[in-house]
Amino acid sequence: MLDYNVPGGKLNRGLSVIDSLRILKAGVDLPDEEVFLGSALGWCVEWLQAYFLVLDDIMDNSVTRRGQPCWFRVPKVGLIAVNDGVILRTHISRILKSHFRNKPYYTDLLDLFNEVEYQTAAGQMLDLITTPAGEVDLSKYTIETYLRIVEFKTAYYSFYLPVACALFMVGEDDEKTFSSVKEILVQMGTYFQAQDDFLDCYGAPEVIGKIGTDIEDTKCSWLIVQALQRANSEQKQCLKDNYGKAEHSLVLEVKKVYNELELQRVFLEYEQESYSKLVSMIEEQESEALQVVLKSFLAKIYQRHK
Amino acid sequence: MLDYNVPGGKLNRGLSVIDSLRILKAGVDLPDEEVFLGSALGWCVEWLQAYFLVLDDIMDNSVTRRGQPCWFRVPKVGLIAVNDGVILRTHISRILKSHFRNKPYYTDLLDLFNEVEYQTAAGQMLDLITTPAGEVDLSKYTIETYLRIVEFKTAYYSFYLPVACALFMVGEDDEKTFSSVKEILVQMGTYFQAQDDFLDCYGAPEVIGKIGTDIEDTKCSWLIVQALQRANSEQKQCLKDNYGKAEHSLVLEVKKVYNELELQRVFLEYEQESYSKLVSMIEEQESEALQVVLKSFLAKIYQRHK
Repeated sequence: MLDYNVPGGKLNRGLSVIDSLRILKAGVDLPDEEVFLGSALGWCVEWLQAYFLVLDDIMDNSVTRRGQPCWFRVPKVGLIAVNDGVILRTHISRILKSHFRNKPYYTDLLDLFNEVEYQTAAGQMLDLITTPAGEVDLSKYTIETYLRIVEFKTAYYSFYLPVACALFMVGEDDEKTFSSVKEILVQMGTYFQAQDDFLDCYGAPEVIGKIGTDIEDTKCSWLIVQALQRANSEQKQCLKDNYGKAEHSLVLEVKKVYNELELQRVFLEYEQESYSKLVSMIEEQESEALQVVLKSFLAKIYQRHK
Repeated sequence: MLDYNVPGGKLNRGLSVIDSLRILKAGVDLPDEEVFLGSALGWCVEWLQAYFLVLDDIMDNSVTRRGQPCWFRVPKVGLIAVNDGVILRTHISRILKSHFRNKPYYTDLLDLFNEVEYQTAAGQMLDLITTPAGEVDLSKYTIETYLRIVEFKTAYYSFYLPVACALFMVGEDDEKTFSSVKEILVQMGTYFQAQDDFLDCYGAPEVIGKIGTDIEDTKCSWLIVQALQRANSEQKQCLKDNYGKAEHSLVLEVKKVYNELELQRVFLEYEQESYSKLVSMIEEQESEALQVVLKSFLAKIYQRHK
């Protein structure tokens, strides 16, 4: 179960812990012990992700994940996958206890993982009640709802959590630092998800490694939210009639409206604006090392094509 | 979701925290603050239970729970119940953080709930792999397997957890005390589960408030484990042929073997033996107050008929 579900992803989140740690300790070679502990925390982030994915795939009735059948679809697994998810989660606490129990920041780490788990579950709840299976109600797809889902479901665990882990490891304990870093990384996570949604429609399948199906899947995507904000009544009707349908010709109708509304241009403007805003937020940080960490994250995702 | 799933049980586990606390502080009136904190911890135990029940009912495809449809069977809930389970779990951490963050035993409480969650999930896993849906393999129903499932799936969270919470609240921090209390309460939990299994078959339905179906449900029950240990080859064949079948006449065949093997007498002997062993273990405890706590628990369940 662990071999099937924990590795196999890109490991971006886990590696972010080590990357952040190296930059925060710039100039000093990381001792083996620190590399080990940073890796343990990186893996905790990956186990958390595995836990969410195993459960989300059950709830979404998904078919494949990372190029193989979703865990609950493996013969003899089925809904036992629910307990396997819990087993994954409980091992995070076990890893933390094994390696960090005597560290001054142990309690902070427990609180951090607990809080991030709560935020992510709250985000999943928001997503599930906004886009219930089998029902389409585009009036719920507002920008406020979109931002709230992304913040809670994705940004905290994918962006804030790895950096916060690294900060605890270097002895940071100023709450103001954590809260301003959190604000920046939640913004960055939101920008990242908007890119994801954009690439699902406009990315090159051979580059992003999949064929996007957000329109067919009735996803509350950045694009549909922008389209609904800008559409005239005729275009709105077209979106309502065609969003969430599997037929290729109907998907093309939705894309036609996206193109009429120049969503590619709208996205590029949003990207510029997000980038500038993030840079100026980052430059307000007192710690130079922290600025480098945050800028390196931003550089990795700015104008990405995959 | 909370109103549907958290209250409605007998609250034995939650009330055990307060009961233990009152005895441990014998002679002193509990200040309101302590009653409040003990109640908060008691509710944490109940929320943990609610979390397990919501998820277990999904995995077991159960129909009713506490006299109402299982949560996942409620219209519009379905597999969203998986995330609701997670939401229940994450709120335990939130309650603990809200009320205990500044207590010297806060980290111990987090470790305790984490460990007990792990043990319970491990017990659920053992149970699921021993009695897979749709397959009957009585050769797996050994006493060792039975004891391991009960210890992990039930005893830690139902018996050890509430008392450990109360011990932390009164400032106990001796690891040896916790480990000997744990050993006693795991034994007591095992005895309790054996009673439960016994009453499922031999209890009066109007007293236990339900009609037992462990035989029909192919449960790895104390009775079938004892029967398999004692049966001759003919009786064993009868159990294999009839265990796990819904027809009333086949259930009666199983009960006939139970009666031939005098399982009522076997249980009464087991009950006496468990009781004596528990009393002598309890009397080895140094703290008198702790002896009173443990004996009051034992008195509540000894020779119970419901």
